[in-house]
Amino acid sequence: MPASSQIVGEITTAVGKLGAVVTALDVAESHADRLVLDMTCLCADAEQVQSITETLRSMPDFVVRRVSDRVFLLHLGGKIEVASKVALRTRDDLSMAYTPGVARVCLAIADRPDDARRLTVKRNSVAVVSDGSAVLGLGNIGPTAAIPVMEGKAALFKRFADIDAWPICLDTQDVDEIVRTVTLLAPVFGGINLEDIAAPRCFEIERRLRELLDIPVFHDDQHGTAIVVLAALTNALRVVGKSLDSVRIVTSGTGAAGTAILRLLLRAGAGRAGGSVIASDIGGIISPARGDLDDNGRWICKHTNPDKVSGTLRDALAGADVFIGVSAPAILTGADVATMADDAIVFALANPDPEVDPADARTYAAIVATGRSDEPNQINNVLAFPGVFRGLLDSRAHDITEDMLLAAAYALAAVLREDEINPLYIVPSVFDERVMPAVAEAVSAVAQAPAGQRHRG
Amino acid sequence: MPASSQIVGEITTAVGKLGAVVTALDVAESHADRLVLDMTCLCADAEQVQSITETLRSMPDFVVRRVSDRVFLLHLGGKIEVASKVALRTRDDLSMAYTPGVARVCLAIADRPDDARRLTVKRNSVAVVSDGSAVLGLGNIGPTAAIPVMEGKAALFKRFADIDAWPICLDTQDVDEIVRTVTLLAPVFGGINLEDIAAPRCFEIERRLRELLDIPVFHDDQHGTAIVVLAALTNALRVVGKSLDSVRIVTSGTGAAGTAILRLLLRAGAGRAGGSVIASDIGGIISPARGDLDDNGRWICKHTNPDKVSGTLRDALAGADVFIGVSAPAILTGADVATMADDAIVFALANPDPEVDPADARTYAAIVATGRSDEPNQINNVLAFPGVFRGLLDSRAHDITEDMLLAAAYALAAVLREDEINPLYIVPSVFDERVMPAVAEAVSAVAQAPAGQRHRG
Repeated sequence: MPASSQIVGEITTAVGKLGAVVTALDVAESHADRLVLDMTCLCADAEQVQSITETLRSMPDFVVRRVSDRVFLLHLGGKIEVASKVALRTRDDLSMAYTPGVARVCLAIADRPDDARRLTVKRNSVAVVSDGSAVLGLGNIGPTAAIPVMEGKAALFKRFADIDAWPICLDTQDVDEIVRTVTLLAPVFGGINLEDIAAPRCFEIERRLRELLDIPVFHDDQHGTAIVVLAALTNALRVVGKSLDSVRIVTSGTGAAGTAILRLLLRAGAGRAGGSVIASDIGGIISPARGDLDDNGRWICKHTNPDKVSGTLRDALAGADVFIGVSAPAILTGADVATMADDAIVFALANPDPEVDPADARTYAAIVATGRSDEPNQINNVLAFPGVFRGLLDSRAHDITEDMLLAAAYALAAVLREDEINPLYIVPSVFDERVMPAVAEAVSAVAQAPAGQRHRG
Repeated sequence: MPASSQIVGEITTAVGKLGAVVTALDVAESHADRLVLDMTCLCADAEQVQSITETLRSMPDFVVRRVSDRVFLLHLGGKIEVASKVALRTRDDLSMAYTPGVARVCLAIADRPDDARRLTVKRNSVAVVSDGSAVLGLGNIGPTAAIPVMEGKAALFKRFADIDAWPICLDTQDVDEIVRTVTLLAPVFGGINLEDIAAPRCFEIERRLRELLDIPVFHDDQHGTAIVVLAALTNALRVVGKSLDSVRIVTSGTGAAGTAILRLLLRAGAGRAGGSVIASDIGGIISPARGDLDDNGRWICKHTNPDKVSGTLRDALAGADVFIGVSAPAILTGADVATMADDAIVFALANPDPEVDPADARTYAAIVATGRSDEPNQINNVLAFPGVFRGLLDSRAHDITEDMLLAAAYALAAVLREDEINPLYIVPSVFDERVMPAVAEAVSAVAQAPAGQRHRG
């Protein structure tokens, strides 16, 4: 590009016309006959990147050398690393951290295996385990393509709870093999976080691992989501002055998240005092009339929908106080939300595109939450899993109970003071420093309570 | 303890009399009637700690509040941690490192799986895999008690080669299960380091994993040791002016290390030009007369001992130029070493107690090496494995070959300049900064050589 002073203006104008923003522009090289510029743009999507590149390429005297994506730049070489906590400067250091000194520590653990949770990384480690079968909204992309997500999760564990998590991406989708493999590699971990494993397989894997292992097993897509939903709902109901046990709740989606949300809502008392819980999936309301239910569906059928109504999601929604969707994009309209009760609460959590357009929903509902980071009231698992595992590890818990999930949800809800809560603020920000300690303490307190007091939920 | 000025002198004198050294002494609390002291001692072993504690306890007006072991203090909470390489300060950061941005990276890897070695931790990660069946000299202590060693190894990987290694301690000692489990968890790793797995099981596990996986599999107890032994022997022979292919070599021990040493020596040309290699184990010289050989023993029998001599290790040693022991403590005396050829080379590597007392051996041999850090010429695997894996990862190698092991050994030997080598200095210090890059470059060069040039060993 020739070193003309007009050229910078031409570029930013061209980029602006296409709807993007130039956020940085550096001169990388300057020659008598040309300039090399390093420009950073904020783009909405890959299409916009493409059109900007083509526009710049078509400008006279202009060469596009290279286009990089800062998301890819950030991922180069991976997002996590292992660090040594001990200095290894001298032979003396080596002889303590490794042979021969380490032998004494090994023998101590051989004598008392539980000391591994004091003297090794097991004290603070979590395996983030996936088979790559249900990764984000991408579906079954396999274990290798799932690595960036599991690594990202490990980075979040560190950032939000100082936990040492390691990604385990398994090259099998067989339930028996997954269960056996996780069992075999469990010794070095203080907890197991299952991630992005498709339903209904995830239910069996979690159940069997919980029976087999003496460390807690937590499927974040289920329980992390359920905790944050219950916390958000607790505060939302506070805003509109309704109570969980007397409201009519309708859910959409009976996968991992949907099922766990139903279980935790029921456990928390939903439907007990005149209220009801009705679940639906792609085939409509879960009711005895349905002939297509699997084990999980039959469980839901047995424990929800006390009046045995059948029909579509829309049928159920009329007059409902609360809608919770963890299913598919754009299955409802503003008009559907309009049929709900006064002061309706809508959690449209399908990602990246919610069950109903949030702006449309807000026209008719009192409170709207989504999974999106560019909307208020983001239901984000980062609010739950770091604190849950911090609490489990700190209390050296051997298992995780529904009481702990409940305690985590109530603690998360209680992070917001009465005067902070409003229709646009029913959950704290993920960067709110009160969140992790509050959740951790709640989980830890339940874990350490005498057994007789533990089943108080 | 009363605050008398004599008391400090009394303590240090008492400790000194028992053969230990006071290295630090702090006043932790000072009261009118008493002092609380924090004292650090350098002790030889647990017995000495015990006798110092008892002596101090028996002194009048003296209370021992607590005795800690700094090796245990160093291990508290583990020796490694996971760190995030990316800043996670804002929602924007989260949206790049995790959802939704990470989805683009996942899709790119789903398209081109090899990109996982560019865009994820697989670029730089190694699994340190053990079943806890042959840990250090401690034997079969199981996977949990083995964690401190595997964690220590991970710390060494970071310290010496900036590699992100994670301990995998498997709760099974079944060959099929170990092979299957490592295969299933391989996606997230760029290499597998097998560690402290008992022979002969380790041979089959390594062979099968090499066939199944597209990442390199390296059993450090075998090949790490073999590389350092060959490097040390190369320099030792240079000192005494003998050549590998014409010397008489006798080995003791046919476990993991012993077998790998034999294979690499043969590959390097030992025995080719008038020399010979004779192996022995607890039953004596490996020869066709032995009826007790397993598969591994039969392989050794076929490839060594060309004159088919039989007898004891002592019989073989008479007139030999080189002894290499990776077997058991104190099986030879200085008198045995005296029967060897002039300018004998003795590698007595059994740990912590060598096959022959190093001082006795030095009376009769020109060069003596051990596995001990308190003797000159320590044969330490830390000289090999960090550079080997650095080279493998940097070249994105899919497998490891004997040519790479040879190249690593020669590169390690060549780190020492001609004028640096002498009978007390045949391998560099583990802290010599030339070591890792030299080994890495050698391995990398072989990995990247065109296939036709790779089998030049």
